[in-house]
Amino acid sequence: MPASLDSLRMSIGEFDLIARWFTRPARRAVLGVGDDCALLQPAPGMQMAISTDMLVEGRHFLPTVAPERLGHKALAVNLSDLAACGAAPLAFTLALALPRVDEAFLDGFARGLFALADEHGIELVGGDTTAGPLNICITVFGEVPPGLALLRSGARVGDDIWVSHPPGGGLGDARLALEAFRGRVAMAAVHFALVRARMERPTPRIALGLALRGVATSAIDLSDGLTGDLGHVLARSGVGATIDADALPTSAALAAQPLALRRECTLAGGDDYELAFTAPADQAPRVQAAASSAGCAAVRIGRIEAAPGLRIVDARGAAVAATFPAFDHFKT
Amino acid sequence: MPASLDSLRMSIGEFDLIARWFTRPARRAVLGVGDDCALLQPAPGMQMAISTDMLVEGRHFLPTVAPERLGHKALAVNLSDLAACGAAPLAFTLALALPRVDEAFLDGFARGLFALADEHGIELVGGDTTAGPLNICITVFGEVPPGLALLRSGARVGDDIWVSHPPGGGLGDARLALEAFRGRVAMAAVHFALVRARMERPTPRIALGLALRGVATSAIDLSDGLTGDLGHVLARSGVGATIDADALPTSAALAAQPLALRRECTLAGGDDYELAFTAPADQAPRVQAAASSAGCAAVRIGRIEAAPGLRIVDARGAAVAATFPAFDHFKT
Repeated sequence: MPASLDSLRMSIGEFDLIARWFTRPARRAVLGVGDDCALLQPAPGMQMAISTDMLVEGRHFLPTVAPERLGHKALAVNLSDLAACGAAPLAFTLALALPRVDEAFLDGFARGLFALADEHGIELVGGDTTAGPLNICITVFGEVPPGLALLRSGARVGDDIWVSHPPGGGLGDARLALEAFRGRVAMAAVHFALVRARMERPTPRIALGLALRGVATSAIDLSDGLTGDLGHVLARSGVGATIDADALPTSAALAAQPLALRRECTLAGGDDYELAFTAPADQAPRVQAAASSAGCAAVRIGRIEAAPGLRIVDARGAAVAATFPAFDHFKT
Repeated sequence: MPASLDSLRMSIGEFDLIARWFTRPARRAVLGVGDDCALLQPAPGMQMAISTDMLVEGRHFLPTVAPERLGHKALAVNLSDLAACGAAPLAFTLALALPRVDEAFLDGFARGLFALADEHGIELVGGDTTAGPLNICITVFGEVPPGLALLRSGARVGDDIWVSHPPGGGLGDARLALEAFRGRVAMAAVHFALVRARMERPTPRIALGLALRGVATSAIDLSDGLTGDLGHVLARSGVGATIDADALPTSAALAAQPLALRRECTLAGGDDYELAFTAPADQAPRVQAAASSAGCAAVRIGRIEAAPGLRIVDARGAAVAATFPAFDHFKT
């Protein structure tokens, strides 16, 4: 743990803060919070999947988000990376910079964080807290049998391209909520509540990722927008694709918006944390069964092709002209 | 990876940034930077040691630090936690929030980071970058055979207490440098250069931690100051201790300062990243051999006792009255 050069004068200290909000007994870990390191005993033969994400206020979440939802989301976006690899979650670490010790914030944040952790049977094994501009950095650990991880590099020519979605929900709902917060769009209150929850409380598709082991040839989670994220799969797999913009799952809230906004949200919305994945055409029944067993839906949106690049067409086969850059934390 | 709600308009994007500064071929990892997760194949039977630290500008480092030293230090403070567990380093992840893409900063930061990584034969396996107030969050992974990790809880009554130090250097040098930056103390330029390097470019005692497996009964790295850090060992081991303030290793730079400042720096300085550890008295020759093999020195500073609490005496056995709180990121 690094020493602090300078510190805020607070009513509660760092070690008290960790003890009060972020220490629970280790169950699976050999050693949890409170020593220099946590100790995990990997299951024999399994590979360890690791991902880390940093969330910054105003950039990855709005100041208006409820602390409980923020705690959920901070872990969810990390679990989503495990889902995209087909890894089973094991544990996580949390590093947290806070401008001040705000007990109501910490109560809510810890509640949301641990509720999602408990849902997946994983535990917080270590971390760090410091004063500073609000910043949440979580690192997650999962396990996957050798050779079964879903990689971005596995898409093959002829594979179907699929995306997951919640029953009744679609891609782009999180972006639609953001546009509503920005005052760019209006919608019915019931729709806003639904898309706001999609933005603030995403569901990592862990069960789907596990069910797609041995079925999908590649996978990625949709964080930066479908076209950009799918572009990573195409680049790493050395293939191209055509997708049907009209096949993209669309919620009732988004369906009520003008076509241009629907296209923008579904194709490039970001923050959805659904899975985009590829599978051989003859695996379609297994894909549907995997989605069903995971409590979500999956829809075929296109096909992998040899010609490089991503082509977007509508239901009639006409090219959809617009290009939407993926979210990038340093441009667009 | 979480999507960004809003982004800076920059000349270089997030993915280019990762590719240019933070992507190198995976050597030991099954899969390195560039997919949703990294994949590590743990060695059969070994436990995985994990630690995470977050560094914030103005709190863990001064804006005056050279980027190369900052890259070194950000990884060093994490490796120090592995050292304190007796774990062999394997890999690390890096999450980085930057106010802007500053090529000179990134060049230097990456150079310092990878130089230390190469020194320990470890690799960057994943990460995240975002725009935001400067924040560096590294998570390190190491391995240790079951039962051989050095824990804070293992100190036993009668054990000697030791601290490591560099030949010619001591505890408190980093704090002395900080006080010089703050304008509180003056010293010869040659001394300032030495203590500044101790503050900005600490040496994680990895080799010592490995050599102390099976020798030391407990260990902790000195990040927040000797009395506070040793307090964690005493609390978790359910013991007390007496230490001799005059036995603490002291550099020539610090020895030239008034007694009160020497006491404050050596006893509570923080940011030293030496190891404090305990060992049965009959292990003293093996401790000395371990330090020698690790290229550092170790000195006995006290003894573990049954009576709770930490007693500080001078060379004549007189109580040293001052109490120094440990650094705490939210108070003092």
